[in-house]
Amino acid sequence: MIRSSSRGLRIAVVGGGQLGRMLGLAGIPLGMSFRFLDPSRNCPASAVGDVIEGAYDDELALARLIDGADVATYEFENVPLRTAEFLEGRIAFAPNGRSLAIAQDRIAEKDFFKACGVPVQPYRAVSSDDELRIAVEDVGTPAVLKTRRFGYDGKGQVVVHSAVAAQMAWEKLGKVPCIFEALVAFDREVSLVATRGRRGSFAAHPLTCNAHREGILRVSVAPDGDASLGRAAEMHVRTLAERLGYVGTLAVEFFVLGGSLVANEMAPRVHNSGHWTIEGAVTSQFENHLRAITDLPLGETRARGAAAMVNLIGTVPPIDELVALPGARLHLYGKEPMPGRKLGHVTLTAAEHEDFADALAHLRELTGEPNPVPVA
Amino acid sequence: MIRSSSRGLRIAVVGGGQLGRMLGLAGIPLGMSFRFLDPSRNCPASAVGDVIEGAYDDELALARLIDGADVATYEFENVPLRTAEFLEGRIAFAPNGRSLAIAQDRIAEKDFFKACGVPVQPYRAVSSDDELRIAVEDVGTPAVLKTRRFGYDGKGQVVVHSAVAAQMAWEKLGKVPCIFEALVAFDREVSLVATRGRRGSFAAHPLTCNAHREGILRVSVAPDGDASLGRAAEMHVRTLAERLGYVGTLAVEFFVLGGSLVANEMAPRVHNSGHWTIEGAVTSQFENHLRAITDLPLGETRARGAAAMVNLIGTVPPIDELVALPGARLHLYGKEPMPGRKLGHVTLTAAEHEDFADALAHLRELTGEPNPVPVA
Repeated sequence: MIRSSSRGLRIAVVGGGQLGRMLGLAGIPLGMSFRFLDPSRNCPASAVGDVIEGAYDDELALARLIDGADVATYEFENVPLRTAEFLEGRIAFAPNGRSLAIAQDRIAEKDFFKACGVPVQPYRAVSSDDELRIAVEDVGTPAVLKTRRFGYDGKGQVVVHSAVAAQMAWEKLGKVPCIFEALVAFDREVSLVATRGRRGSFAAHPLTCNAHREGILRVSVAPDGDASLGRAAEMHVRTLAERLGYVGTLAVEFFVLGGSLVANEMAPRVHNSGHWTIEGAVTSQFENHLRAITDLPLGETRARGAAAMVNLIGTVPPIDELVALPGARLHLYGKEPMPGRKLGHVTLTAAEHEDFADALAHLRELTGEPNPVPVA
Repeated sequence: MIRSSSRGLRIAVVGGGQLGRMLGLAGIPLGMSFRFLDPSRNCPASAVGDVIEGAYDDELALARLIDGADVATYEFENVPLRTAEFLEGRIAFAPNGRSLAIAQDRIAEKDFFKACGVPVQPYRAVSSDDELRIAVEDVGTPAVLKTRRFGYDGKGQVVVHSAVAAQMAWEKLGKVPCIFEALVAFDREVSLVATRGRRGSFAAHPLTCNAHREGILRVSVAPDGDASLGRAAEMHVRTLAERLGYVGTLAVEFFVLGGSLVANEMAPRVHNSGHWTIEGAVTSQFENHLRAITDLPLGETRARGAAAMVNLIGTVPPIDELVALPGARLHLYGKEPMPGRKLGHVTLTAAEHEDFADALAHLRELTGEPNPVPVA
């Protein structure tokens, strides 16, 4: 363990959103206690630990965050790099700043995937009108123009079908540095959530099949039935994690195209597509992240039967209807409703996917979520 | 629901021990928030809610406890009856004071079991030397002399094998009101944890097989394989719950003797022998208790495969060894070590009992727990 003492381990977390809340719920049973840095005192994680109210780059707040803590981590990928540097100099900090830096820059991320032998779609960096023109010529259309930095949940990206549309999108995005990527006509989207320990141990959760709408994850179903695809994804993520010297939980989203994987992006943290592991796997992504950063042995990641997760976005359906669904477990994040905001999720578990098909259909109705998930 | 509002339900809990902590961990994902009344600010439940520091019968503290709360409950059965009366007059309070009153008096409890047609061993009330003499004549020996009130974890009880020993035990217990019970030469001990909703809905978790040592629960294994015994226990507990007008989770411990059940005692709360339901059942006892008292539909109680729970008593083995056991989930309560104190538990889950036999043997070694559990 990171530190041996009679009291439990103290975990400092940059960010106090729902991922922090679920880290706390996973860590309290392990005897851990939590302190979060967040601009809002009533953030979702406030239910499971103390909150230091402050900006993410406020060094005084950061010093208070880690005072007496054994290890520091973060729960969102847009942590300022100087915050990571500040923390790395003062406390065991994981995942490392290098992983953050790469994940924050879509060009660096794609370059890194390529360097690790992980397949990616054609892409070009765009930081001038000239570069945009060359990118359109090289990559072609349809394509997606995305800001290089600070995109999440579909924000900061535009699909374009012509050179003219590309120019308009570029102007719409304010001509900030962008990436121009070929649009992948994928068969389905999958993600792999895996955890690497301080001594190089590695444990991947089963491959998960995801459906997005308006750039936001809506439904995940796991495990995906294509075992060879799962093994390929695991090999890729393991390579990435090892090359990064990564410690903690890492998620990589892939497109599946004609039976092959194309890496889309990575998140250096626990991930929405891994929420089903709370009930659906022997050890959840949250517990394994905490085990990794505190140097405890990683837990088993195998699935306990089948699971489906549906996000509650913008509004929460009546909770008595949600919890009445067979096999359902409700997770609310304690956030005020707002269009497009992730307010919670519901996980269904059963022995086989067919067993919760009716409940899943009902849940998709309740949440107004049309997309079925094309599981293998 | 008890109250419909945009904010989550607020739950007031008398007591802030590990059961309160696990109630909080189950309720936070449902959007609930918690306030606990406990003499100690650093009680186990302090990790998951606010703590009002005070005595259980302090009316000012009780008023603060329920200020703004939607419903009040308790997490230990020795709640003073005048506290229950105080709360019943001011807020939705469950389980009701009548259930508490019966559970707090071993004679009232056994009388109630009998009145409900639930089999019990022979017993007599003892409050004088004369009554003790008559009890020994009527019931015979071996027998157990127990204080009528405030016994738990084997405290306040003595096994006696003769009239002379009975007299000595009576003096040792300070001649407080007692119950004299025939000692049951049981084949094994089981318990049923069940939940009754505000509108009479009822859901029983699978029958659990338990091993005690020195009066303290050590190991539980579930589900027990004897389905007809499970049905009989469920019928008994349902009768008890209905006659009590019970709302919430209730546990009843039984002896199994020649294929029949003999009721030992009941606990009007979530119960140590139901801790395995956190991972081992679709809905845990903690979540179902919260659903019941807030008038949400009860969740499914069926087992997800097999589970075993081992208590960590007095000391905690190295946690890296505990979490390295296949299929293990650790639950620490945040308490200081002390001989005989329940500090946590470990739950093992697998498809079948045989699958965790090795891990369970290893866990019993780590915890110095010799007793195997004689599951049917």
